[in-house]
Amino acid sequence: MSDSKEKRIYFDWAASSPYFEQANSALFGNPSSQHSEGKAAKQAIDEARRICSQALEVPAETLFFTSGGTESNSIALFSNLMRKGQGRILCSMAEHASIRSAMETLDKLGKPTGSIAVDSSGRVTENTLKKALQKFPDTRFVSIMAVNNETGTITDMQMIRDTLRQTTDNKAPIHFHCDLVQAIGKIPIDLKNWEIDSASVSAHKIGGPRGIGLLYLRKPIEVFYSGGGQENGIRGGTENTQGAAALSNCFSELGMMTDNRKKLFSDTLNSAKKRWEKLISSLYAMERCTLIPADRKPDDERFSPYILQAAFHGIPGEVMARALDDLGIAVSTGSACSSSSPERPVLTAMGVEENLRIEGIRISQGSLTSDEEIDLLLDAISQILKFL
Amino acid sequence: MSDSKEKRIYFDWAASSPYFEQANSALFGNPSSQHSEGKAAKQAIDEARRICSQALEVPAETLFFTSGGTESNSIALFSNLMRKGQGRILCSMAEHASIRSAMETLDKLGKPTGSIAVDSSGRVTENTLKKALQKFPDTRFVSIMAVNNETGTITDMQMIRDTLRQTTDNKAPIHFHCDLVQAIGKIPIDLKNWEIDSASVSAHKIGGPRGIGLLYLRKPIEVFYSGGGQENGIRGGTENTQGAAALSNCFSELGMMTDNRKKLFSDTLNSAKKRWEKLISSLYAMERCTLIPADRKPDDERFSPYILQAAFHGIPGEVMARALDDLGIAVSTGSACSSSSPERPVLTAMGVEENLRIEGIRISQGSLTSDEEIDLLLDAISQILKFL
Repeated sequence: MSDSKEKRIYFDWAASSPYFEQANSALFGNPSSQHSEGKAAKQAIDEARRICSQALEVPAETLFFTSGGTESNSIALFSNLMRKGQGRILCSMAEHASIRSAMETLDKLGKPTGSIAVDSSGRVTENTLKKALQKFPDTRFVSIMAVNNETGTITDMQMIRDTLRQTTDNKAPIHFHCDLVQAIGKIPIDLKNWEIDSASVSAHKIGGPRGIGLLYLRKPIEVFYSGGGQENGIRGGTENTQGAAALSNCFSELGMMTDNRKKLFSDTLNSAKKRWEKLISSLYAMERCTLIPADRKPDDERFSPYILQAAFHGIPGEVMARALDDLGIAVSTGSACSSSSPERPVLTAMGVEENLRIEGIRISQGSLTSDEEIDLLLDAISQILKFL
Repeated sequence: MSDSKEKRIYFDWAASSPYFEQANSALFGNPSSQHSEGKAAKQAIDEARRICSQALEVPAETLFFTSGGTESNSIALFSNLMRKGQGRILCSMAEHASIRSAMETLDKLGKPTGSIAVDSSGRVTENTLKKALQKFPDTRFVSIMAVNNETGTITDMQMIRDTLRQTTDNKAPIHFHCDLVQAIGKIPIDLKNWEIDSASVSAHKIGGPRGIGLLYLRKPIEVFYSGGGQENGIRGGTENTQGAAALSNCFSELGMMTDNRKKLFSDTLNSAKKRWEKLISSLYAMERCTLIPADRKPDDERFSPYILQAAFHGIPGEVMARALDDLGIAVSTGSACSSSSPERPVLTAMGVEENLRIEGIRISQGSLTSDEEIDLLLDAISQILKFL
């Protein structure tokens, strides 16, 4: 067996990814200051915003640097506290803990909330969305993630857009918030065409450092708290210049900035797909393995080829993860953000039965994952299944 | 005149300080993950918390990593939204923009708020505090900063403690929040003896990177928003391991961790005092210079020897700052966090007349500032005064 101290194989990219680069230590000035150090920092943050705006194909002035995905989600959701008049806030039952927690706060403060069911693949469907909107005709805000962080389920964003459009005919528009954390840099996104009103991005899932993210806002909103008024009043606190530069650099590294970026990006995506096809078809052939959901196919376009949830009969997810860790391979059970709780609310919402919820592990890859690492992971799983 | 591209002199430490160190890129794991990478990250964040707890002389479990001073302040203030029953929230009229903005939000959401006047030095006095508490007998939360970010005014924390103690005899206790951002690593602090309930710290004012800070909580509070439940439910979002390590390293660099730390720290403080005495006595001797407040003495114990506000007759602060910048010296007008606004609310609260508010500049030093830099600053000001 391999020495865990030697070379580690990392399959928990959905929790946090290795870094592309160090922050630039020269940029210590406060971007709100008027001196040369401040202006250099301001220039750096403007340039970082410009790069991000090219990568996301939206105007630079619609992007605001935050401390990460959790804060971006919370700024969007808590803007509901500032909105005049009531109006219900809905989120899907498979949302990230940062959204679920914000919904609890809104609920405590007396805002009407509600949920949108998901099908057995963890997906909001035309049917479940329509049902929720019919049940709650006072809906003014909807939060649906693009890619689920536990299963990789991809939401059909055009369907969401069309359904919201139909519903809002002759009525007050519904704000559409989208958690893009597990989608960005991984699958093609189209903020404009999907008519997203606000979206969240995190750097540390795509090779950047902790503590930096983006909030996209199609139109200005009144935020709950603006602190010192930085980021055009959307996010207070001294701007994280180094973080912003590092985040923008991730987009460059991911091939989202070059002239032939569509090609580069799709090459990366196709490599990820091939590796995942290999992994899924091999797991599928293992008698004791059940994919979650069970009908996920090797080349299933309904799922991101960066995240996979799988269960091994008779082996609790925690035991499997520890056994793999001993062999130098990192995977996770559930999302890191809810690892302190034994509950698996996303899997529960999908109707996954209890034993599979306990046995589920999450395997996630990233831009540095190799074909060889897939083989090593499969070998390790086979070894473990012999003994456990 | 010196070439601004060559060697710059930085006198805006109160806005942001140069870095001590780079973040550690090896620690990319998610501290909430159970694999080796996650455990290494968890260990690193625990160790960072231990170092911070030694430096601040409080239990490690009372410290929570946040994205910075603004967020730490907002978590403390917004806990008022979760408290059962009403109860007024007071803050001094010289608080940082992040506090003032939180007060506006609380006000909009229907929470009763109020303010505590400051004297002509920007200080909450026994008299102004007692008056405010008499006017608002329903006070349950008070926010008073330890060192003012524009003037360096030091609050008499023992007086605050004693006055709050007297007031709360036979009544519900008043939560005492203290913004320590400009105090930490600069003047002696004593969280325990001062009976502070919550306090905020920012790394980037003391040599650390942007995007990391601390919230001290004497006892657990119900927070407004817990995100994914990280930091024991106090601050959601993937833990910024690199930031936490870098922040703890600042305390080591500042001599707050060694066995003879009291000695080292006071040596640093004494050097800062000497430099400030030189600066203040020289400025005092300049006919066109007025210190803010005008009665500040070179060795005035009522002020931090890291921040100075001064006005030059007939020269708007912005013009003076630009002229110094041209000579390679960075100072600021007001605080960076409110630089987008021409208002100077802190100076207004102190009763500073309008022309001095316009002419005021803030000079702030840090642990790397030298005696020579003070001389160069004084020379540059003299040169500018000849021409303007």
